[in-house]
Amino acid sequence: MLFKVEMTVNIPPTLPKAEADEIKAKEKAYSQQLQREGKWLHIWRVAGLYANVSIFDVADNQQLHELLTALPLYPYMEISVQPLCRHPSAID
Amino acid sequence: MLFKVEMTVNIPPTLPKAEADEIKAKEKAYSQQLQREGKWLHIWRVAGLYANVSIFDVADNQQLHELLTALPLYPYMEISVQPLCRHPSAID
Amino acid sequence: MLFKVEMTVNIPPTLPKAEADEIKAKEKAYSQQLQREGKWLHIWRVAGLYANVSIFDVADNQQLHELLTALPLYPYMEISVQPLCRHPSAID
Amino acid sequence: MLFKVEMTVNIPPTLPKAEADEIKAKEKAYSQQLQREGKWLHIWRVAGLYANVSIFDVADNQQLHELLTALPLYPYMEISVQPLCRHPSAID
Amino acid sequence: MLFKVEMTVNIPPTLPKAEADEIKAKEKAYSQQLQREGKWLHIWRVAGLYANVSIFDVADNQQLHELLTALPLYPYMEISVQPLCRHPSAID
Amino acid sequence: MLFKVEMTVNIPPTLPKAEADEIKAKEKAYSQQLQREGKWLHIWRVAGLYANVSIFDVADNQQLHELLTALPLYPYMEISVQPLCRHPSAID
Amino acid sequence: MLFKVEMTVNIPPTLPKAEADEIKAKEKAYSQQLQREGKWLHIWRVAGLYANVSIFDVADNQQLHELLTALPLYPYMEISVQPLCRHPSAID
Amino acid sequence: MLFKVEMTVNIPPTLPKAEADEIKAKEKAYSQQLQREGKWLHIWRVAGLYANVSIFDVADNQQLHELLTALPLYPYMEISVQPLCRHPSAID
Amino acid sequence: MLFKVEMTVNIPPTLPKAEADEIKAKEKAYSQQLQREGKWLHIWRVAGLYANVSIFDVADNQQLHELLTALPLYPYMEISVQPLCRHPSAID
Amino acid sequence: MLFKVEMTVNIPPTLPKAEADEIKAKEKAYSQQLQREGKWLHIWRVAGLYANVSIFDVADNQQLHELLTALPLYPYMEISVQPLCRHPSAID
Repeated sequence: MLFKVEMTVNIPPTLPKAEADEIKAKEKAYSQQLQREGKWLHIWRVAGLYANVSIFDVADNQQLHELLTALPLYPYMEISVQPLCRHPSAID
Repeated sequence: MLFKVEMTVNIPPTLPKAEADEIKAKEKAYSQQLQREGKWLHIWRVAGLYANVSIFDVADNQQLHELLTALPLYPYMEISVQPLCRHPSAID
Repeated sequence: MLFKVEMTVNIPPTLPKAEADEIKAKEKAYSQQLQREGKWLHIWRVAGLYANVSIFDVADNQQLHELLTALPLYPYMEISVQPLCRHPSAID
Repeated sequence: MLFKVEMTVNIPPTLPKAEADEIKAKEKAYSQQLQREGKWLHIWRVAGLYANVSIFDVADNQQLHELLTALPLYPYMEISVQPLCRHPSAID
Repeated sequence: MLFKVEMTVNIPPTLPKAEADEIKAKEKAYSQQLQREGKWLHIWRVAGLYANVSIFDVADNQQLHELLTALPLYPYMEISVQPLCRHPSAID
Repeated sequence: MLFKVEMTVNIPPTLPKAEADEIKAKEKAYSQQLQREGKWLHIWRVAGLYANVSIFDVADNQQLHELLTALPLYPYMEISVQPLCRHPSAID
Repeated sequence: MLFKVEMTVNIPPTLPKAEADEIKAKEKAYSQQLQREGKWLHIWRVAGLYANVSIFDVADNQQLHELLTALPLYPYMEISVQPLCRHPSAID
Repeated sequence: MLFKVEMTVNIPPTLPKAEADEIKAKEKAYSQQLQREGKWLHIWRVAGLYANVSIFDVADNQQLHELLTALPLYPYMEISVQPLCRHPSAID
Repeated sequence: MLFKVEMTVNIPPTLPKAEADEIKAKEKAYSQQLQREGKWLHIWRVAGLYANVSIFDVADNQQLHELLTALPLYPYMEISVQPLCRHPSAID
Repeated sequence: MLFKVEMTVNIPPTLPKAEADEIKAKEKAYSQQLQREGKWLHIWRVAGLYANVSIFDVADNQQLHELLTALPLYPYMEISVQPLCRHPSAID
């Protein structure tokens, strides 16, 4: 089941750089793990912004919630979620 | 070059059904043609809405403009565009 | 799988009363059918508005989309959808 | 008398974890107490967000105000309230 | 039980003047009837606008809904509702 | 001359409780003094929010400004003002 | 007593030009009459828009309401009102 | 050349009172100097708010920018600018 | 003196195509005339939208107003204006 | 390929002045370097605001992203991006 998720990151300047770098490294590893598992189908950077547009493929709303709230950068993110389904004009 | 395009369709109830059906049929054919050409990479329906989330892969801004304004449903659409680029965490 | 759906109805004053009444009667029958099938879990009227707050229990995003777009009043509705899941403090 | 209440929680990162955990534990106990008393009829998590959609069943506006402002997390919440009533299409 | 209700009237210029005048006369009579019954506690004109700020005193949400949707001008109004209660600093 | 004034209070959690309590006590005394003088005609609590809806009866805009900016909680308030006048349907 | 009033004019293209011209001529005469009476203190055009920023000097809210709702273009205007008073830094 | 400028002041509670008072004194002197020079044509207080509505008469956009950014309170202000011109109905 | 002007065009589907085409032809001729005179410095199409971002170089606010309101498509445009000046980092 | 980029700068008052000055000096040098390279085509100051309107000419979305996120003031900026293309009425 597909969801579009948009994430905007706001890391406060008061967060020590070492700590921020560690969280970002964990975020990258976690994201790539979910991508390899086929749950985080797509992730694109929005040009000019510290934000991404993502497509998740999950079992249900509950799993989406668990995956998102476990993001290492979650406390610093603004998140919006839209449930998607197959478009009748899609050829894939 | 990738762009996220969100389209919301508002067909006025005064448009005769036959005319609306013809425009929708043309829209579907046009969309599938662009998908086959690899320019309209993804199209998803937003659950509950007469709207879609799409990813376009085009040569440049100019080509994106030409493809979108040639949509048969264009006069009845509200459109928003966001330029995307590769995300450093993407594995593909 | 649960979704909160909010629907606001705007019937144009130009729609003949007989036609509007027929659509509303179909809407009521359709809504009650879905309630009996356990798919439309709750429906409440928003006090003072021609609007409702509803909870749907569906198989997936696709089924939600099909149920909503088949609403007889759908062409006259503004709809917003939010995916829900179990709250860790819920006792039921 | 029914009300839809939407609560979004924003716990500042400067709040010590032990203190935050204590407030959350109190919030859960308080919520479950109100649920058992039949005043907090439903609570759902909004997928992906630290937010809930709730239905309260209270004697009047005054009681709703007292129950909400006594929430242990109240100082960290953004709250919106909508009065509901029975929908003429509801079968329950 | 008190509610603040704000009503903004938009009568379309296509509504014949005689019909508009008749609706307005009914609206005035209805409003004054509710005021005499003590259900429409206050009504003030917003300076410069075809809008009012009103305070209703009703038995419950259901009664508020019935009173508002029976307004002769209801089809031409935009309405917002806020539940009120006694303020701890009020002296009355 | 009447004005609707809506006040939303945001006391920062960093304000010491003793100081906050003192300001609130002064606010209550000041509000009740203005109510007794007939300048603060009505004050209602908005259910669920740390906010009020008030009606002021003042000599002119200048007096309204002076009364509002002298509120002990003024530095912590978000305020909106709307000039009111008698409604032609009012019976009082 | 001073008020800032902002007016944006939207004349529907369906209004016959002769009728529109007559209303505009009446509007101009009415505006100049109020300016000569000292009630419409200032009127400026917003560059690029069919809109104005005005300052009214009136006896009270009631008079402001009567002057504005008597504007020949009133049915075609979107209006916003803000009560003003003397600024402590003003030298006039 | 005329501009409407709206300024809303937000002095953080953490700014020491002596420092705030000094900035406000400089702001008043600066404002009155510009008024005497005929560049700051009008300044009105918005009733109930720490905000003003002003009219500037300057040589060009560049001069407006220089005058505004030199305001002693500029770092604490939210500013909006609208270019004005003579209204065809103005009698002055 | 420079201004950024953003124009969004909304031609109603009820406008006969011949009439719309004539207005667009006049618009193009008018725009190119102003460009040749150096008053309409830049015009860019916003990708995907029937909208443009333009830079005008005019004598003053008054001239900007006259140029914009004389646009053949003006009755069908939504327009926003921002006064610009030289940026201290600009090298030209 | 052209993009309109709007940047609004918010330097927190807690940033030491020496540090802020150093960042601004780097920003100016970086901006002028990009202007000389023909990538930052135009930069204008918005009158009255610490903000600019800019036109970038870049190879693709990716390059735009890299140039913008390398801005020394980037952590203190709010940025909006719009892809542009040639306007059919442009004479250049």
